[in-house]
Order: sequence, then structure tokens, then C-alpha cells
Amino acid sequence: MAKMVLLCVLVSFLLMPLASLALTQDFCVADLTCSDTPAGYPCKSSVTANDFYFHGLAGQGKINPLIKAAVTPAFVGQFPGVNGLGISAARLDIEVGGVVPLHTHPAGSELLFVTQGTVAAGFISSGSNTVYTKTLYAGDIMVFPQGLLHYQYNAGTGAAVGLVAFSSPNPGLQITDFALFANNLPSAVVEKVTFLDDAQVKKLKSVLGGSG
Amino acid sequence: MAKMVLLCVLVSFLLMPLASLALTQDFCVADLTCSDTPAGYPCKSSVTANDFYFHGLAGQGKINPLIKAAVTPAFVGQFPGVNGLGISAARLDIEVGGVVPLHTHPAGSELLFVTQGTVAAGFISSGSNTVYTKTLYAGDIMVFPQGLLHYQYNAGTGAAVGLVAFSSPNPGLQITDFALFANNLPSAVVEKVTFLDDAQVKKLKSVLGGSG
Amino acid sequence: MAKMVLLCVLVSFLLMPLASLALTQDFCVADLTCSDTPAGYPCKSSVTANDFYFHGLAGQGKINPLIKAAVTPAFVGQFPGVNGLGISAARLDIEVGGVVPLHTHPAGSELLFVTQGTVAAGFISSGSNTVYTKTLYAGDIMVFPQGLLHYQYNAGTGAAVGLVAFSSPNPGLQITDFALFANNLPSAVVEKVTFLDDAQVKKLKSVLGGSG
Amino acid sequence: MAKMVLLCVLVSFLLMPLASLALTQDFCVADLTCSDTPAGYPCKSSVTANDFYFHGLAGQGKINPLIKAAVTPAFVGQFPGVNGLGISAARLDIEVGGVVPLHTHPAGSELLFVTQGTVAAGFISSGSNTVYTKTLYAGDIMVFPQGLLHYQYNAGTGAAVGLVAFSSPNPGLQITDFALFANNLPSAVVEKVTFLDDAQVKKLKSVLGGSG
Amino acid sequence: MAKMVLLCVLVSFLLMPLASLALTQDFCVADLTCSDTPAGYPCKSSVTANDFYFHGLAGQGKINPLIKAAVTPAFVGQFPGVNGLGISAARLDIEVGGVVPLHTHPAGSELLFVTQGTVAAGFISSGSNTVYTKTLYAGDIMVFPQGLLHYQYNAGTGAAVGLVAFSSPNPGLQITDFALFANNLPSAVVEKVTFLDDAQVKKLKSVLGGSG
Amino acid sequence: MAKMVLLCVLVSFLLMPLASLALTQDFCVADLTCSDTPAGYPCKSSVTANDFYFHGLAGQGKINPLIKAAVTPAFVGQFPGVNGLGISAARLDIEVGGVVPLHTHPAGSELLFVTQGTVAAGFISSGSNTVYTKTLYAGDIMVFPQGLLHYQYNAGTGAAVGLVAFSSPNPGLQITDFALFANNLPSAVVEKVTFLDDAQVKKLKSVLGGSG
Repeated sequence: MAKMVLLCVLVSFLLMPLASLALTQDFCVADLTCSDTPAGYPCKSSVTANDFYFHGLAGQGKINPLIKAAVTPAFVGQFPGVNGLGISAARLDIEVGGVVPLHTHPAGSELLFVTQGTVAAGFISSGSNTVYTKTLYAGDIMVFPQGLLHYQYNAGTGAAVGLVAFSSPNPGLQITDFALFANNLPSAVVEKVTFLDDAQVKKLKSVLGGSG
Repeated sequence: MAKMVLLCVLVSFLLMPLASLALTQDFCVADLTCSDTPAGYPCKSSVTANDFYFHGLAGQGKINPLIKAAVTPAFVGQFPGVNGLGISAARLDIEVGGVVPLHTHPAGSELLFVTQGTVAAGFISSGSNTVYTKTLYAGDIMVFPQGLLHYQYNAGTGAAVGLVAFSSPNPGLQITDFALFANNLPSAVVEKVTFLDDAQVKKLKSVLGGSG
Repeated sequence: MAKMVLLCVLVSFLLMPLASLALTQDFCVADLTCSDTPAGYPCKSSVTANDFYFHGLAGQGKINPLIKAAVTPAFVGQFPGVNGLGISAARLDIEVGGVVPLHTHPAGSELLFVTQGTVAAGFISSGSNTVYTKTLYAGDIMVFPQGLLHYQYNAGTGAAVGLVAFSSPNPGLQITDFALFANNLPSAVVEKVTFLDDAQVKKLKSVLGGSG
Repeated sequence: MAKMVLLCVLVSFLLMPLASLALTQDFCVADLTCSDTPAGYPCKSSVTANDFYFHGLAGQGKINPLIKAAVTPAFVGQFPGVNGLGISAARLDIEVGGVVPLHTHPAGSELLFVTQGTVAAGFISSGSNTVYTKTLYAGDIMVFPQGLLHYQYNAGTGAAVGLVAFSSPNPGLQITDFALFANNLPSAVVEKVTFLDDAQVKKLKSVLGGSG
Repeated sequence: MAKMVLLCVLVSFLLMPLASLALTQDFCVADLTCSDTPAGYPCKSSVTANDFYFHGLAGQGKINPLIKAAVTPAFVGQFPGVNGLGISAARLDIEVGGVVPLHTHPAGSELLFVTQGTVAAGFISSGSNTVYTKTLYAGDIMVFPQGLLHYQYNAGTGAAVGLVAFSSPNPGLQITDFALFANNLPSAVVEKVTFLDDAQVKKLKSVLGGSG
Repeated sequence: MAKMVLLCVLVSFLLMPLASLALTQDFCVADLTCSDTPAGYPCKSSVTANDFYFHGLAGQGKINPLIKAAVTPAFVGQFPGVNGLGISAARLDIEVGGVVPLHTHPAGSELLFVTQGTVAAGFISSGSNTVYTKTLYAGDIMVFPQGLLHYQYNAGTGAAVGLVAFSSPNPGLQITDFALFANNLPSAVVEKVTFLDDAQVKKLKSVLGGSG
């Protein structure tokens, strides 16, 4: 293993002709074998057109039966070409009755293009707790400001599909239910900081695989 | 009223000697009578030392009986001198048994100095839903990364006090419970996007003054 | 007219309750009646869900017969809700034989989702003048780094449609041909700075409506 | 006066055809009659080539006899075309024996091109207080990192001239001597915070026109 | 030694499961064994709650007898959890008669909470050299804009304590006296660029350990 | 080779005393032997005054006979001291009849100081395709906004020289002719995306060394 890592470092240097190192930085395709930095991953040395191309949103994502929906990311981890470019993508597949539960993207705003079906979407402002909701049909777009709680659910009679863009290569995705119930945060703490009832917390911890 | 607004605009110009307008921009104290911009408020024309000073965190904040705690902000709206400076402040007062419920700051990271008492604090990462918790005593500090769900509660036997700094003049504060239960977001939608039970949602809507 | 403008300023102030002015800045919907700033437009005071919604990309754009294609923007000027959020959108309709000619976006990177048909796309790096090209089918995405020359054309046998996201609310669009031939830049200067022949320059100036 | 200001606002609106307001933001020439914002001045509505041109650095600046040097700025206040573009300029004229005294630019890094004569220049790092000095001849360039104390003086036998660029449209200029001795900061405070002797402080306050 | 470094690199890779590398970047705790970058340190691979916690400001700092004060930093170098988060902290302990001498933070604005005693504080604007001063009591806060000269001294009859936040994980600290007198910058140069007398310069160089 | 790279990594660590690693980041001189990141190169560990100094613009650049001009860069690749400082430089030498052909800087605005001769310069806005031109004489400066097409040519009777600053350490340089004709982009594609005639494209491909 140690040998593999050394190799990685060496290859990275060998592929990068020193003379051209600093000519320009039109782009910086992520080298995911290196540590991330606050501004994104170090740049890969050898780049082709394929680095700027992503096929993984072409088909339906893997539906999570719990939410009858799939969120398929094309963030920097899946699509290294977006590193440093201030943008990334995802695909939503929402079956009839499905929902992308209440969540935030801590590091980016979201732009949703509905390409099929009918989606009810909303976000909630901080401070005043105002709710902004729309029913979106194929062709409609909606923007969700960075860091605010929002949701989408299928409001139609057939499957819904959305293409999503983010204002960051790595926007993050924090689903409130998963943050509360899919880990080992003790039930007593969850109850204290949310005012939810003990039975409710334990029920959802059980559904989502949490402990404590 | 219309007259008052005109007056405001004129005074703003009269107080700002044209010759010195563009000499420098060491700071930009917010003119809260103007519209905000994505980078903060337009600069006030006449500035004194008092604009960089704030007394409002010196005493205990007004305790909200529901949470037995007070969050007193010194954001740009209360403390215009921080406009454009990438920083702001707040004070937490948490009584015995009190809690600052689960919340996020959509636009800033938080640094908490505990100055009195004992505070249990935690945040949850996105993606992996990992919980990071600490018990903090007077003199301890903890940092909460931007946009992530976190909480603080009194874990001691006396009142706790914290001084808080943010990496933005206007970090926002979105309390999850208030976003879900203190507005007119219909119960059916809350239930759909959180998987909470109807009785639970209605109970908390009632406590927090929500409708629908 | 003067009266109308005054009215605009006054209404803007009247609609904005002073008390809530600085509570938060979750978003900053553009007030397009005010002057832009380097960070975007001042914030509109009264906001509804419709400000975050845009319908204008739902149908085919108006095809320009010269290029057999349409570029329909949803930049801040058309979709004020994206102001300050670091993102915007557009729709490409490219008929058989159509082309989005060589162009740059001076202020943003572009992410293209092909939703129908077949699109040949490419961009050229600076410095080394390397060409990166891909043929994209429905479902494919490609990213074009900020400021680099790129193009898209229909490479299939039916109409092609693309949804585009940008990493800026106002990315700009500079079509090289229009910059050279659709204005009054003298032919002699165009020839000097491009090495194009006089006949070629005059032919294209004539096609694109330029003078000089 | 009030009438003049109103006129300014109205003219600004009248000159800006509403339809083209949000088409693009290639640039944002400063409207210096409006209040500054943290990101720079609002954009002027009617722009010509002259807004991007500045003649004021073509001749020798007005020599300050105290320092036998002139610093002539082309910051946003003098050259509104640089607003929002992350760059500005200045010209240094340093007579034999002259000096640009110890100073910082709080908001930008500096790049100095020496175009005539010989200049001794240096800056001091924070923390370790390391001194970095060079003697610069015509054609040499040196960069001074943002916010660090630095100086330039004539180290030759004829007048020296430098052209300077900054990484900000409004970098500021804080000359340490002027900050300490050219205002009403009481001598006792200056002495307390600098450990300078009372006689020294009073001597320089007298030279530089300070009081207290 | 070489072996140790290799080990560090390898361990860093071994601890970071490749699969989870790019899932999210909620935070980026500094790996201080790697080189810094303009945006901060590369991210540490294995993180616990302790990385976001700092105890080092809980007690009085080590008083420097020269200034009868202590400045204890919790910058990224001491508190790696703040890396990339746009914030850091420090603690000031100022004995009776003590002073934090004239200084700047080249890379951040400062927010001071006085928690004990009485502090006289001031900063000086660039350009106009205006002095902004306040006397601060326990509970008061004051903000000092980035890059401007400022100072704090004990103005009371007992020890004073301040908690400080900065708008950067690594704001820097340039104390004017140390920059001038605590290094090998020749006295003749100091005198030339500050107009201080030779005796004064030599006296302070002697006190502060400078040479030349 | 592999040994050389290992050595580089080790030396870099050995030279950097661990204790001082995180004291400050006043600057970050590029270590060009490491991979770039989206925010610039990792910082070199051992720095001297020479890192902030550049002599390479002192003499005339190597004239390209095709354009009778030379563009000599002092970007981060040539002048590592500018890394992370938001600024860089270049020198233009334009012989009689020479031209810096139509080009953009994808990642920075440009400020041109003409120091000798007469230069005709212009840029073209996006959207409206408006041309902004000036004839510049020694001492004049002009600013070219980021990403917009611009050109400079000698409009006088002797050689012209310009010193150029950029708002980025690595602004890039995309010459339209080179992007179109100096690579393997097929002629048919060039024609399709530019509407240039086949003969014209082939003629310029031949002149500039392109193929296809």
C-alpha cells in the first residue's frame, strides 16, 4: 500500500513536464488521490476531454425505497473536472409518492430544472421562517438559496425528473432526518434540541438505522 | 413618509464631501436606510468611533421561556460597523435546563467562547451524519463549520454564558423547529418531508405558534 | 419620467419595513430598477415565491436563422432571484445544422446538460491551444471552464436541446464573430488584429450587420 | 444642492435604458456620486472609452518637500474605470534623497516597476519581523504583499520613477508617521503604544502638523 | 528525519479511505505537516471532535514584561480546526499599566470582547489619519477593520482580559515597534523611512533586541 | 527522476522548521515543484528577498516575427513571489507595424502603462459588442476588463513598450487566432463555428502551424 502511494506521487510528477507547469491555470481537474484543500483538490497533471464530461446522470438513479427517490450527485468526487470551477450537478428521480426530504446544501445554492413530471418544492427563510413554495412542471426552474432548508416531492401522477446545478463543486447535502436519526446522537439529546417526543425520536431512529 | 425618505437621501449626500468620496475604503459602516446588496449595505457617510462599538451584549439577553435561553445578535443590523468586515458577534445566555435548539447559520462559521458555566455542544457533518460533541467549560472555545446543524445546551448547575463570533456580518440563524413549526407550512407537507407523525407535528405547531 | 423614477425610489422604501431591514440576508432578489454594483444588484424589498421561479426556459427559444439556434438566458436580468447566489441558467435550442458559434463567458464557467438530440461541443485551452471535444447525447453533461473559447453544434439528425447552468448570476456571452463583425470596429483594425483577409472581414461584416 | 443631487439620481436613470439594464456586467465604472459599498461603487450608466483611460500618471507628481517624493494615485476615486476590476495604479516620483516613508496598503498587494533611477525597497514580514530588501534599477519589479510594512527610497544619483499596480481598486495607503503624528492622537497615547520618547513624539507631531 | 516525513505522507494516505475522499467538504481541519497554500492548509484525513475544540485560551497568557501584556493566539497554527472557516481567536491579558502596542493584522478584521477590566482602544484610518478611540468596559465589544493600525491598553485599576475573534484563520500580527526595532534593519534605513532620531532608534533597537 | 522528486519533497520538509509552520501567512511564494491548486501553488518553505524580485522584464522581449511584437510574462510560473497575491505583470514590445493580436485573459483584468511610443488599443464588450478604443502615448494607462476581447498595436513611428499588470497571479492569455488556427481543430469545425471561408481558415492554419 505504501508503495502504491509513493507511486502515485511519483507518477504525478513524471507526467507533468516541469517546463509547462505554470503556463496557465485555465482549469484544475481534481487529483482525488491527494488531500483536499479549502479551495478544492490539487490539479491532476494529465488531462483529456473526458475529464470535463460526465455520463452518470444519463440514467435513472438508484431509488432509495424509504423516500422513493434518488439523488445522484455529479460533485467533484464523481466529476473531477468541476474542481475549482464553482459549479457542479446532480439528478433527482422522484417516483410517485416520493420525496427528497427536508435538507440543506451548506456550501452552495441550487438551481433545479424540472425535465419530467410535476414537483412541489419549497424553501424556508431563516429569521422570519417564511415559506416559499411552487409547483413546478417540466421546463420550470427554481432556485434555492445557499444553506436554507428546502424539499422537493412528486406532486404528479408519474415519475418526476429534475436536473440540478449547484454554485459550488462540493455543495454538501445535509438531510435533516438523517442528521438527527441516522447516527449515534443520543435520543435524549435529540429530544432536548428539537422538542420532539421520545417515542417519535426512537421510531425514526429505528427506521433510519440510528442508535442511542 | 415620502418626504422622510427623500430627506435621508439628500442628507446622505450633503454629509459626504465629494472631494473625499473615493480616497479610501478602510471600512464601510452600514447605512441601514439603504437597500442591502449581495456584498452588504452601502456605506454610511459620516462615521464616529461609536459606529465601531457595541454595548448590547454587556448584559443578559431576554430569556425566551420556551428554550430558557437568549440569543442576542450583534449582526450588521444591530452593529452596522461590522458591515463588509467579514465578522459579527452574539451572546448566548442559557439558564439551567436551557437550550439553543438545533440550528444552522447559512452564511457563516461560528466560534463560541464559553465565559461562564458548562455547555454541551455538538454539530453534525453532512454526508456521513457524524456527530461531533464536546462539553465546554469557562474558557473553552469550539468552532462550528458554516451551514452545519448544531446545538448548545446548559450541562451544568448554574447559568451559562457564551460569546460568539461569526465569519460574516450577517450569518443568519435558522432554527430547525421554527422553520418547521412556527409558520404556515401545512402539516401534511411537514410530515411528508420529515416523516414525523401528524400528532407530533401538530403538537409542535401549537407550541411554536404555527398554523396549517 | 422623472416622476416615475422618484416614485420607484419611494415605493422601494415604503415597502421595506425599517425594523426588518437587517434581520438576515438569506437571499437578495435583484431590484433591477437600481444601478448594478460589482457584487450584483441591490436587494428588492418585497419578495414572493415567484421571484425564485422562472418559466421562460420551458419552451423553445426564438431561433436565429443565421445560426439555426437559440440561446435563451435566465441570467439576473431575466431571473432576478439568482442575484448574489452565484448561479444562473440558459436554454440552447439547436436545429439540424445549427450552431452556437465560438464564444466565451467572461464571468462564469458553464455546465451543459444535453436533454435532447446530439451535440458536438469543444473548448480550447489558453497557452497551449489544446482542443477538448466531446460528442454529447441526451443525458450527458460537459463543463466549460470560465473565459475559454467554446462552441456547440448539432451533430445529429433532429433538433437538439440543452439546459445550461453558469457559476455566476451574470456570466456574459461574447460571441467572437459578433465582437469582430457586428459593430463599427474598422475593417482595417479587424484585419490587423486577426490576420483575416479584407474580403473575408467585409463579407462577414455584411452578413452580421457591421460597419466600417 | 438638494436639487443637484436629485438631478443626479434622475439623470442616472434616464440615461440607462431599462431594457438593457441587466444584459451583462462586463465592467462597472464607478458612479462616484453614489455611496460606496463593500464591493465597490454602483455602476455608472453611460460609459465611453475615456472611462477606461487615465492620463494623470503621465507627468511627475507634486513633490511633497518633506519627503522629496510624490505618490500620485490612480485608484477608483481618480480612475473610476477600475471599479470592481481588482486592480489600480499609482506613480512614484522620488527625488535624490527622497523617500516614500514606511507604510502599508491595508487592502491590496503592490507591484512596483522601476522605470527610471535606482530605488532601495524593503518590506517586513509579520510574526518573525524578517526584513526583505532589494536595490532596484530601471526595468526591475518587486512585489510587496498585502498589509505589510514597506518603504522605498531613492538610492541613486538622479530622480527615480516607479509605476505601481495594486491588487485592488482601492488599496488604501497608511503612512505610519502620518498615522502617529499628523492627527490629534494625544502624545501620551502615542508614547504608550510605541515606546517612543516624549520629545521625539512632540518633534514629529510638530513637523507633521499633529496636535495633542 | 527523511524517514519520518515519508511516514507522514504515507500515514496520511492510509488513514483516508479512498472511497470517502470526495463525499463532502463540510470542514478542512489543517494538516500542519503539509505545506500551506494561499487558501489554507490541506485537510487532515482523520478528524475528531477535539479538532474543533481549543482549551488554550482558558487561562492567562504568558505576560511579556516589556509590555505587561500577553497575546495568546488560537490561529490555524494552534487551532487547526479553524482552517478554511474564515475565523480564528486570541486572548489578551493586560496587566495594570500594560499595553498591546500599535499593530496591524494584515489579513483580517478583529472583534474584541472585553470580559474583565477597562481597556482603552483605538484605530487610525488610512488616508485621513482619523483616530477612532473608545474606553471599553466588561461586556463591551469593538471592531478594528482589516489592516489598520490599532492598539489596546489597560485603562483601569485591575487586570484586563479580552477575547478576540478575527475574520481569518491566519490574520497575522505586525507590531510596528517589533517590525522597526527587533530585527537587523539598519538604523540608518529606519531613520530614513520614519524620520525618527538616531538616538531614539538605537535606544529602541537595544530594548527590543534589534541589531544594525 | 523518481529520486529527484522524492528529494524535493524531503528537502521541502527539512527546510521548514515545524515549530514555525503556522505562525503566519504574510505571503506564499509558489513551490512550482508541487501541483497547483484552484487557489494557487503550495507555499515554498525557504524564502529570500529574491523571491519577491523579478528582472526578466528589464530588457526587450524576444520579438515574434509573425506579429512583430513580444509578450513577456511575469506570471506565477516565471515570478513565484506573486502566488496568492492577486497580481502579476508582463511587458509588451511592439515594433513599428507590430500587433498584439486579438486576445483575452480568462482569469484577470489588465492594466497597461505605455512607457514608450504610441499604442492603439481597444476592447469589445460582450452582449452589445460595443468597441472601446484609445490611442495611448507614453505615460497613459488603460484598463481592459477581465475576459473581454482586446488588442494593442503600434500606432506610431518608433518601437512601443508597455508594462502590464494583471489582477491575478495567473491570468492566462488566449489569442483568438492561435486558438483557432494553431492546433488540430478540424477546418470544417472552425468554419462551422466561425462562418469563416474554407480558404481563409486553411491559409491561417498554414501560417500558424495548425493541422486538420
